[in-house]
Amino acid sequence: MTTVGILGGGQLARMMALSGAPLGLRFLVLDSTADACAAQFAPLLQADYRDEAGLAEFARRVDVATFDFENVPAESARWLAERVPVFPNPRALAVAQDRLAEKTLFQELGIPVPEFAAIDSREGLDAALARIGTPCILKTRRLGYDGKGQFRLRSPADADAAWAALGAQAGTVGLILEGFVAFQRELSVVAVRGRDGELRTWPLTENWHEDGILSASLAPASAGAELESQALATARRVAEALDYVGVFALELFLKDGVLMANEMAPRVHNSGHWTIEGAETSQFQNHLRAVLGLPLGSTRAIGHSVMLNWIGAMPEAAPVLAEAGGHWHDYGKSPREGRKVGHATLRADSPAELAAALARVGKALGRGAQVAPPVARLQGG
Amino acid sequence: MTTVGILGGGQLARMMALSGAPLGLRFLVLDSTADACAAQFAPLLQADYRDEAGLAEFARRVDVATFDFENVPAESARWLAERVPVFPNPRALAVAQDRLAEKTLFQELGIPVPEFAAIDSREGLDAALARIGTPCILKTRRLGYDGKGQFRLRSPADADAAWAALGAQAGTVGLILEGFVAFQRELSVVAVRGRDGELRTWPLTENWHEDGILSASLAPASAGAELESQALATARRVAEALDYVGVFALELFLKDGVLMANEMAPRVHNSGHWTIEGAETSQFQNHLRAVLGLPLGSTRAIGHSVMLNWIGAMPEAAPVLAEAGGHWHDYGKSPREGRKVGHATLRADSPAELAAALARVGKALGRGAQVAPPVARLQGG
Repeated sequence: MTTVGILGGGQLARMMALSGAPLGLRFLVLDSTADACAAQFAPLLQADYRDEAGLAEFARRVDVATFDFENVPAESARWLAERVPVFPNPRALAVAQDRLAEKTLFQELGIPVPEFAAIDSREGLDAALARIGTPCILKTRRLGYDGKGQFRLRSPADADAAWAALGAQAGTVGLILEGFVAFQRELSVVAVRGRDGELRTWPLTENWHEDGILSASLAPASAGAELESQALATARRVAEALDYVGVFALELFLKDGVLMANEMAPRVHNSGHWTIEGAETSQFQNHLRAVLGLPLGSTRAIGHSVMLNWIGAMPEAAPVLAEAGGHWHDYGKSPREGRKVGHATLRADSPAELAAALARVGKALGRGAQVAPPVARLQGG
Repeated sequence: MTTVGILGGGQLARMMALSGAPLGLRFLVLDSTADACAAQFAPLLQADYRDEAGLAEFARRVDVATFDFENVPAESARWLAERVPVFPNPRALAVAQDRLAEKTLFQELGIPVPEFAAIDSREGLDAALARIGTPCILKTRRLGYDGKGQFRLRSPADADAAWAALGAQAGTVGLILEGFVAFQRELSVVAVRGRDGELRTWPLTENWHEDGILSASLAPASAGAELESQALATARRVAEALDYVGVFALELFLKDGVLMANEMAPRVHNSGHWTIEGAETSQFQNHLRAVLGLPLGSTRAIGHSVMLNWIGAMPEAAPVLAEAGGHWHDYGKSPREGRKVGHATLRADSPAELAAALARVGKALGRGAQVAPPVARLQGG
């Protein structure tokens, strides 16, 4: 009997445990909070990521460790990795935690990226602004997610305000200035790499954000064979450079037929939630298969899927459940503004059926704005 | 937050909890054993089904109760139902627990059944044998499953042996003599009925048994529209007569174009495990939707599926996981002869692909005999 340890007890750990149970696995979730939602379905070890006694107990009780949360301190991951196999490896985690390190890696690998510059000082910001131009975005290098720790500059005159907002973090988590890409579409590729180096990608997914948080995903994005193969090649280069094992996601911008890499998530990813019902094998189960050295499952899509994120509070379930291809995911979390509390996936055999179902759900829930972009895309927009 | 109580903590409860988690449900499993496999993913209340204090605590902690185990004492179900909603209702459970009551009901509803007679004495057995003829099967009325509590009579001369084997139970669980049906195929229909009376059936499933235990299921059975509608009508008559809420299965014999009802399982059923990957909504989630009064999910099949039961001990997983449509279900149970410890489902878009995958798996696992019947059927046999 194999016990998989998961650092972090949020919805990703929860869905991983639910998806891994059929493999005969047991789980242990490490989280600092008693009400971590994964703990509703897996044993919890309540401890801080930096608590050495907690980590030691965790290491004793698990056979292999992985992550629900990408910002586990890299030193904790390294400490653990000396005691128990940890996938992805701590170096991959460290690179993906740092926007500067990951963009530098992408660049070294010949992967197109937005222009970027490390920012250490107010003067450095001016110099970088002069080179990159506006619009651009000042971001923290580490610990940012869902649009947090970001400041958009529309003109050089915004430099003072940007520095006032984030400058204090230049000496702690570090800052990076990134050129704004006037992309045509936001896509992501979710990939899995096995212990033996086999790499598979799910079909490209198109994503729409609202206030910096993922709002809707459509898969397959039907982006065409050329882009699918670009995405596969990009994922392969990154994964091989990092000797990555498990699932990861690359957020991509599509501009003029080229995929630019925006960032990497070293874990299962919100834009891959549709794979639970919409693919032969879900990202959650394939992550576990990879981590355990089992054969990877097929990443083939089954029909067409749209995932809708529920942020803050769960809407009424009935309109989704009443759809033939409607699937509900309530993470068992209490409501809180800006919090991801659940999602729904709608699946259908054809884009037209899916668009119709989405439109019905959007109307019933008063969420026309959320469903409009994928509906338009499915209708050929 | 809704807590669903499940009486019995085996693999059915386990898969129900895993499937219900996305609905935002919590679970409490009542089981007399500490190592009930459902308890790996849901809280356990360890108590006997007849322990009134345990049942009282269970009733206090759950919002609604249902069953993993059909032989929960009917009086315990009735006691609970006075305190908390219980689905299916205790009367339905009581009828389904008793082969005589269920066959009598089928007969009253005009559903074809094998010939049968209640047996109270050795003389009664002779009289019934004279009427029904041989071959026939003497069975306990209650508490039999997976071929246990059965004695097959090939000729009237076997009456003494049959009585020696089971006669002592005539005064306890009761006995029934059933005519043997020379059926062409064994089928089952898994159905779900909502609180509002809506009824849906999954496509007919063909089943093969080994030593009285389900060995393989193929779905859809591709039995034709006429039999599908016979099955739907039969399921509806039974469910309405019992005011049944939740999932149930009818085991059917196909003989000369007619479906005869063999028995009813008042719960999710082994022959419906393929629905986890092979249908839009699984029997487990639809059971919970029904019990909670939520809209029922689509019971449409997605492609073609074969489920293989693993009895006694789990085989090697890799050959199944390596198949594109290969899905593994290890119930987390310790091995024991005759015990259902897991299953695999193979799914494919076409019968030919499925037959090829099955044949590869059968060969790799040395289980050619187990896969042969569904392979033959898929190849048009």
